[in-house]
Amino acid sequence: MNFFLSVTPAHSAKMLLTLLIMFVAAKLAAEIFERLRQPAVVGEILAGVLIGGSVLGWVEPSDLVSLLAEIGIVFLLFNVGLETKPRDLLRVGKHASFVAILGIIVPFVCGYGLMRLWGAGNIQSVFIGTALVATSVGITARVLQRLGLLNAPTAKIILGAAVIDDILGLIMLSIVSSSTEGAINYLEIATTAVLAIAFTLFIGSIGAKTMNFLGPHIERLKIGDSFFVFGLILCLGLSVAALYVGVAAIIGAFLAGMALSEASEDVPDMHRQTSAVTEFLVPFFLVNIGMQLQLSVFRDTSTVILAVLVTVVALLSKWIGCGLAASGLGTRAAAQIGVGMSPRGEFCVVVVQIGLFLGVIDNALYGVVLFMVVATTLIAPPLLKWLYAPEISAKRDGGSDIGDADGEYCMIG
Amino acid sequence: MNFFLSVTPAHSAKMLLTLLIMFVAAKLAAEIFERLRQPAVVGEILAGVLIGGSVLGWVEPSDLVSLLAEIGIVFLLFNVGLETKPRDLLRVGKHASFVAILGIIVPFVCGYGLMRLWGAGNIQSVFIGTALVATSVGITARVLQRLGLLNAPTAKIILGAAVIDDILGLIMLSIVSSSTEGAINYLEIATTAVLAIAFTLFIGSIGAKTMNFLGPHIERLKIGDSFFVFGLILCLGLSVAALYVGVAAIIGAFLAGMALSEASEDVPDMHRQTSAVTEFLVPFFLVNIGMQLQLSVFRDTSTVILAVLVTVVALLSKWIGCGLAASGLGTRAAAQIGVGMSPRGEFCVVVVQIGLFLGVIDNALYGVVLFMVVATTLIAPPLLKWLYAPEISAKRDGGSDIGDADGEYCMIG
Repeated sequence: MNFFLSVTPAHSAKMLLTLLIMFVAAKLAAEIFERLRQPAVVGEILAGVLIGGSVLGWVEPSDLVSLLAEIGIVFLLFNVGLETKPRDLLRVGKHASFVAILGIIVPFVCGYGLMRLWGAGNIQSVFIGTALVATSVGITARVLQRLGLLNAPTAKIILGAAVIDDILGLIMLSIVSSSTEGAINYLEIATTAVLAIAFTLFIGSIGAKTMNFLGPHIERLKIGDSFFVFGLILCLGLSVAALYVGVAAIIGAFLAGMALSEASEDVPDMHRQTSAVTEFLVPFFLVNIGMQLQLSVFRDTSTVILAVLVTVVALLSKWIGCGLAASGLGTRAAAQIGVGMSPRGEFCVVVVQIGLFLGVIDNALYGVVLFMVVATTLIAPPLLKWLYAPEISAKRDGGSDIGDADGEYCMIG
Repeated sequence: MNFFLSVTPAHSAKMLLTLLIMFVAAKLAAEIFERLRQPAVVGEILAGVLIGGSVLGWVEPSDLVSLLAEIGIVFLLFNVGLETKPRDLLRVGKHASFVAILGIIVPFVCGYGLMRLWGAGNIQSVFIGTALVATSVGITARVLQRLGLLNAPTAKIILGAAVIDDILGLIMLSIVSSSTEGAINYLEIATTAVLAIAFTLFIGSIGAKTMNFLGPHIERLKIGDSFFVFGLILCLGLSVAALYVGVAAIIGAFLAGMALSEASEDVPDMHRQTSAVTEFLVPFFLVNIGMQLQLSVFRDTSTVILAVLVTVVALLSKWIGCGLAASGLGTRAAAQIGVGMSPRGEFCVVVVQIGLFLGVIDNALYGVVLFMVVATTLIAPPLLKWLYAPEISAKRDGGSDIGDADGEYCMIG
């Protein structure tokens, strides 16, 4: 009889085993994909599909796994923020706004149109259209980070556009949901919009200045690794604040990182320390995406067809919408931005969960959207690698970059 | 209406808020205690008491928090293992064994005696005696790590004794539980004992050699930070294996760290990366200890008296037992070892949970043991700091040490 195993709090043996399986599967798949010269993230997501309920069933989605996944993506965006100077983002503000706006209108119209053609009702079509609007920047950020390309001009546009896109998506979601429930509550929608915009502008504008001022004081604190500890607090704090304001946690984490991007330049360990936490947690985020896939809803042929159609529309509408908005920058840059904006994530899941709750969306449609989320996150990385090939080889031929790329990019190609 | 907040998976907003509160409370308390020249760990545990259910009630124990706490202590012991060479531990083997054995016999006899004098039955007294036997080395390891004193000879004896103590405690627990349930199953107990000892000896003896051989191969892997990733896998893997064999997860993590201690010397980033993960997660472990305290069972005066008595016996019996065993090393070394072995932890909780399950222990007695756990973890750190004062000032006066103490010790005293 194993006493520790039977009474240890939180069934920690089983949970630690789950984490071990997820981590090992992710890293094995990453190694295989790197050797095949494919992006590691694709391997890690597919590892999740493999060990998840649809195939092997070794692990199943749980609150614990979701929480670790959430902390993982929060740290990833914090890390990306640390490598993004506010002024660089402001410089691309016009392009980013344009990309965000067209990248919302085109997918909404196409998603709505597809569902109407498929024979769906008006409200259901509006929900699927809304589910297609918001980019999940985590996957793209991870790919560009691993390639050491977060400083590329198009990377800045993608990051800026993703922030604006998330806020616009939130406002759209408020409108759609409140109209479905009956009368549109304009005051509530306006409050949500103002709060989200004010939060982002406020942190974006005064964050860096405040942190540059606070930096020397933080380093004088008595606790060990005070700057790192302060960074962790700011990251968690702004993530929670973002959620309570109504935008995604990763927007708060990104803003926190960006606010510290200048102050942390004098603290070389900071990047290395947050990278270490990120490296430990991001695999749970990636594997968890794959684990969401429920293949059982695809026993019905028409569901399969719809899933493929929705995925194609999700991809094409972002490529075209964002690409058109960025067409002034040249074809390749426009394609980089379009593809970079195409992965979808938790926002879609939130939209369809609200739809499920309101009875507008059924389980099959929920499965379709989850399929689209996994598919778009799988398709973007290899395309990005291909579209950024010139930058990758330019870097490899001696272009040195910011200190914390850690030479990882040369391991990818 | 806040949609993200209401439908985000795993209630991540609330969970992230809980983590934020725990982390901020821990670090604020740590800063205050450092300024008062008191050990930061005491502040972090007291922060848990303050925000826990007994006082402010801002956070409550949950599976999610326990899991993070568990990963935190696992990483802490992995980190400590990385700084411990197997040969150093072997060198103190005789002393460590002696300390472990007397450090089990004396607390068991004293705990049993106290309960009998208190009027408790035979089986109940055996359970409380058993609950007092096993040291939880996490607190001591954290204090010594922060002081930069993991290389002190007495630190090695404490670490070695804690490993042996955990195995002996496990065997005792098997005997006590199976005798309570009826006939003693000798075969089962023998299997448990042999498995636990074999696992520890096997990893302890061949671990380092295997890793020294594998090291160069691991660094040739394509994935980024391959050595760090491999370390994480070994740490999680041996923690899970330890739990399934029957010993505590931290023993597995410690052995994993020790196996990598030599191979990781050529990988300077490794220590820094695991330290970063540890710094993020350890506060959850410390705050979680404090959160366990349930002051409500202490409305009854006799329970309060018993709690104080059990705590005094728990402390004195380890000080005397382990101190006697180490008396040949001089008074101060013996005192360092006795105090270092006195914090109790999850083992006690496991014992009384089994007792609760078997109906031998009631809720009041459960509260008493939790009080003893929190009290012993609070009392040891300041005593350790005091007993190690000469080593601390010797270090401060220029004795440089292993690279990854990070100069933290000079922030403590």
